[in-house]
Amino acid sequence: MENYNEVIKNMNLKFRNIDNNKLILAITKNKDNLVLMTAFMNEESLKKTLETGYMHYYSTSRKKLWRKGEESGNIQKVLNIYRDCDGDALLFEVEQTGWACHEGYMSCFHYEIKKDGNYKAFGTKFD
Amino acid sequence: MENYNEVIKNMNLKFRNIDNNKLILAITKNKDNLVLMTAFMNEESLKKTLETGYMHYYSTSRKKLWRKGEESGNIQKVLNIYRDCDGDALLFEVEQTGWACHEGYMSCFHYEIKKDGNYKAFGTKFD
Repeated sequence: MENYNEVIKNMNLKFRNIDNNKLILAITKNKDNLVLMTAFMNEESLKKTLETGYMHYYSTSRKKLWRKGEESGNIQKVLNIYRDCDGDALLFEVEQTGWACHEGYMSCFHYEIKKDGNYKAFGTKFD
Repeated sequence: MENYNEVIKNMNLKFRNIDNNKLILAITKNKDNLVLMTAFMNEESLKKTLETGYMHYYSTSRKKLWRKGEESGNIQKVLNIYRDCDGDALLFEVEQTGWACHEGYMSCFHYEIKKDGNYKAFGTKFD
């Protein structure tokens, strides 16, 4: 059985102190290089992600771990993980079931900002 | 002349309090959907980005604004900006001069994490 504490140690990550939590940033994209979402991860959610092979994040607002799709079913299976140069962010390539955004779009980044700062949703609304 | 305070207000962003700075997250990718880097932005760096059309970020370690490429020349011209659903992150599509990572790679995310957590650089090293 994998010792995930060791695995995480080898990843040499730089957890940042935010509101008394030690967090790294997770950016999640799919196989087609669409950036789906971004959220924080604490060590526990990273460990659960590695153990289960499905994305877990940390909610700073609810102050708890959450498994992506635990209610919606829109789970994210981890395919690859990339580390950035200073170790404070990880880029996860996932297989997305359904769609990533609770607003019903594949990506959370479904608003295009216009010159005046106003924004407009684009893309398919699944839900 | 554009009133960038108005523009930023229209973007309806949710700046997060981190170490007494109000920050949003910037994820930067190129036209080929390669995620180049991620860094924080404060309101001043966002304003400078909008004013100049070139990426500026906020360094939490140096506690100051920085223009990407100010020393290396590896500047990033903004092509498009996308907002995420809750307004605490922006995805910038840029035209990258040179490469984004100071380690000499196009992307900062040039380490692939292996099963044991160790990581290995991949891709072209330009520098």
